[in-house]
Amino acid sequence: MKAAVVAVGTELLGVDRLDTNSLYLTRILESYGVELRRKAVLGDDEQEIASELARLAAEVDLVLVSGGLGPTSDDVTREATARAFGRTLRLDEGALAAIVARFRRFGVAMPAPNRKQAEVVDGATLLPNARGTAPGQLVTHGRCAVFLLPGVPDELKGLTEAAIVPWLRARWDGSGIERRVLKIACVPESGVEERIGPAYAEFGREAITVLAKPSEIHVYASAAGDAAARTERLDRMQARLRELIGDPVFADRDEESLESVVGGLLAARRATVATGESCTGGLVAERLTRVPGSSAYFLGGAVAYSNQAKTSLLGVAAELIAREGAVSESTAAALARGARERFGATWGIGVTGIAGPDGATPGKPVGTVHLAIAGEDGSLTHRAAVYPGDRERVRWQSSQWALDMLRRRLLGIGARA
Amino acid sequence: MKAAVVAVGTELLGVDRLDTNSLYLTRILESYGVELRRKAVLGDDEQEIASELARLAAEVDLVLVSGGLGPTSDDVTREATARAFGRTLRLDEGALAAIVARFRRFGVAMPAPNRKQAEVVDGATLLPNARGTAPGQLVTHGRCAVFLLPGVPDELKGLTEAAIVPWLRARWDGSGIERRVLKIACVPESGVEERIGPAYAEFGREAITVLAKPSEIHVYASAAGDAAARTERLDRMQARLRELIGDPVFADRDEESLESVVGGLLAARRATVATGESCTGGLVAERLTRVPGSSAYFLGGAVAYSNQAKTSLLGVAAELIAREGAVSESTAAALARGARERFGATWGIGVTGIAGPDGATPGKPVGTVHLAIAGEDGSLTHRAAVYPGDRERVRWQSSQWALDMLRRRLLGIGARA
Repeated sequence: MKAAVVAVGTELLGVDRLDTNSLYLTRILESYGVELRRKAVLGDDEQEIASELARLAAEVDLVLVSGGLGPTSDDVTREATARAFGRTLRLDEGALAAIVARFRRFGVAMPAPNRKQAEVVDGATLLPNARGTAPGQLVTHGRCAVFLLPGVPDELKGLTEAAIVPWLRARWDGSGIERRVLKIACVPESGVEERIGPAYAEFGREAITVLAKPSEIHVYASAAGDAAARTERLDRMQARLRELIGDPVFADRDEESLESVVGGLLAARRATVATGESCTGGLVAERLTRVPGSSAYFLGGAVAYSNQAKTSLLGVAAELIAREGAVSESTAAALARGARERFGATWGIGVTGIAGPDGATPGKPVGTVHLAIAGEDGSLTHRAAVYPGDRERVRWQSSQWALDMLRRRLLGIGARA
Repeated sequence: MKAAVVAVGTELLGVDRLDTNSLYLTRILESYGVELRRKAVLGDDEQEIASELARLAAEVDLVLVSGGLGPTSDDVTREATARAFGRTLRLDEGALAAIVARFRRFGVAMPAPNRKQAEVVDGATLLPNARGTAPGQLVTHGRCAVFLLPGVPDELKGLTEAAIVPWLRARWDGSGIERRVLKIACVPESGVEERIGPAYAEFGREAITVLAKPSEIHVYASAAGDAAARTERLDRMQARLRELIGDPVFADRDEESLESVVGGLLAARRATVATGESCTGGLVAERLTRVPGSSAYFLGGAVAYSNQAKTSLLGVAAELIAREGAVSESTAAALARGARERFGATWGIGVTGIAGPDGATPGKPVGTVHLAIAGEDGSLTHRAAVYPGDRERVRWQSSQWALDMLRRRLLGIGARA
């Protein structure tokens, strides 16, 4: 079954509103195996809505329309639906009585404009709305079912549960779409793409979606069919994708983040960590402490922005900074070792770099970052990079690479090329 | 001029992603008097995208398409656009050279899949992308201009500023909707609503929009008409709103944030700041250092998560922690004073609290936070609060209130009730 979601309301075309009902509706649709083909947001324009509905009714099996069922003159979804399918509107006495009764319950007479909320597209099924004045409507045109729903999220959810879910369940073959994620750190999108090429061939291109964020890629495997078949297929897909991508995969569940994975590895080893940051300004510590329970393994950090702070807080030798520069392998190593020692932690993370927009020097452009991980036996891993993008992006990527370096150390796998 | 915005990407039809680029694009369109007629979200389906573009080109003057310009095989916006308008795709050698050069700058060879990003719709104008590999394209069909833009927000914004804004400006008659913001810290939405009541009556309810985030409210004043009339009206509205809301207003420009305002005040006074954080885990330092140039006034911070770190890094007396507790007014004050002294800063910020979900004790529920600002003359401002919400929200609100406390100290205005 194929579906479309249409949100009606001129306010949804402005600069400060987004249609969020569609996320809720999508979840319902996915769980009953319905494929969402498109979403549209339209203004309160009768002609525009009518032509969209007429077109969609020829293309999909189910259209969920939200909004435009209010009492004001710019609420025209009822009129537009009637026009789209060559129907008339009729006043439904039962619906009108329900609206009048609702107002009476709150001790007021029904204002005249609300009368139009009892107008029903000829041939439609009325869907009572327990949470508001506007009833929903189900209009069938050819093989397509069109549900009209109020735009108020709470009312939309009530009507969806009361009317749409039973409708879907009655037509459900037990199938549905299920998705599983693999999260990958510090590999570019095209690099992931190259690695997973064989999986496209084996499972079909449409079954795999790649989402890219800076220094983090999410690969989604999706499978349709009944629950047992889905699980079996997703297990196979995930195993194959993991095999193809290799150890850059750091998580296989939606709720995991790089910092929660690193935290879990630290906790499992009863190890602790401390940070010595310069250009990231506390971002690595802030990410590590986003994770509930992080006080079990995160001891603390120093944000050593000034050179003096690097020396006084973390014991980075002033003459080392003078000789090698604050942005150097030696300083990163000294930050990592200093953090580890000062906080008495198993691991120390050191970050120093030039986040920009100012601060570049000859040979050290904006984005130059040195990362270091200090471990138990005095061992040290270092990485130098020039990250692209603005200040925020350089800082984010620095934190991402630093956390991934620690992950690799904890797992005993080699550093990335 | 009429416009439509189309977001392409199967992930945008899933349960966890919304197209947010359209909000940014809408703001640009509004400011040049362009009417947004509709938004659509389509999957990575060549036929679907092609038929939508063909239809829109007959209905509106401007179509902004985002997404589907990546290197992967499911990126088909280029192909779909060519199909919609009966064009071919050709490989542009200049675009290819730019992509190869971009990869070389980061020290890697261009992966083979990126080659397709140099494919251009015949007759299109190429729009160089300084922030990514995918160039944008401008395709003209009849009276309609179709811009193809990358879906990555940062790249989309860069291309919009470089290519779409000049295009709009060249066609602009000077009319449009203009908006101005007032940003307010640490007042609940209902409190702002109460204060601005008179402005609704004076300027019309539709001219003022209130957007609420945790511990931060944005009040937008909007005006239509020609530039001079708009400016005059917006000046009056902003002055009146500022008068009604008072000193919780911390900024009147979109690009300002609480941390940039605090930074500006510090810089203007040649003052410096250091942080001593526990429950916020570095968030206050991280926010202060988001601001370009913050090294002029931010000296450093300590994330003192363990009690031992509070003592060894910031000199918080162990017996004080034992007597009063790590989450107490005394500890917050000692963190602020310790940070100020250890880093040699004019101001010290101290934060300690229970971000949750664990850690609550009798009398100290999750959300309990103590904030302190230490100033030059040994002076200290303290605030205790219980912030609602989950870990992330407690941490965010703590950072917001701490920064606002410092703002008030810097401005010499009283603490909030």
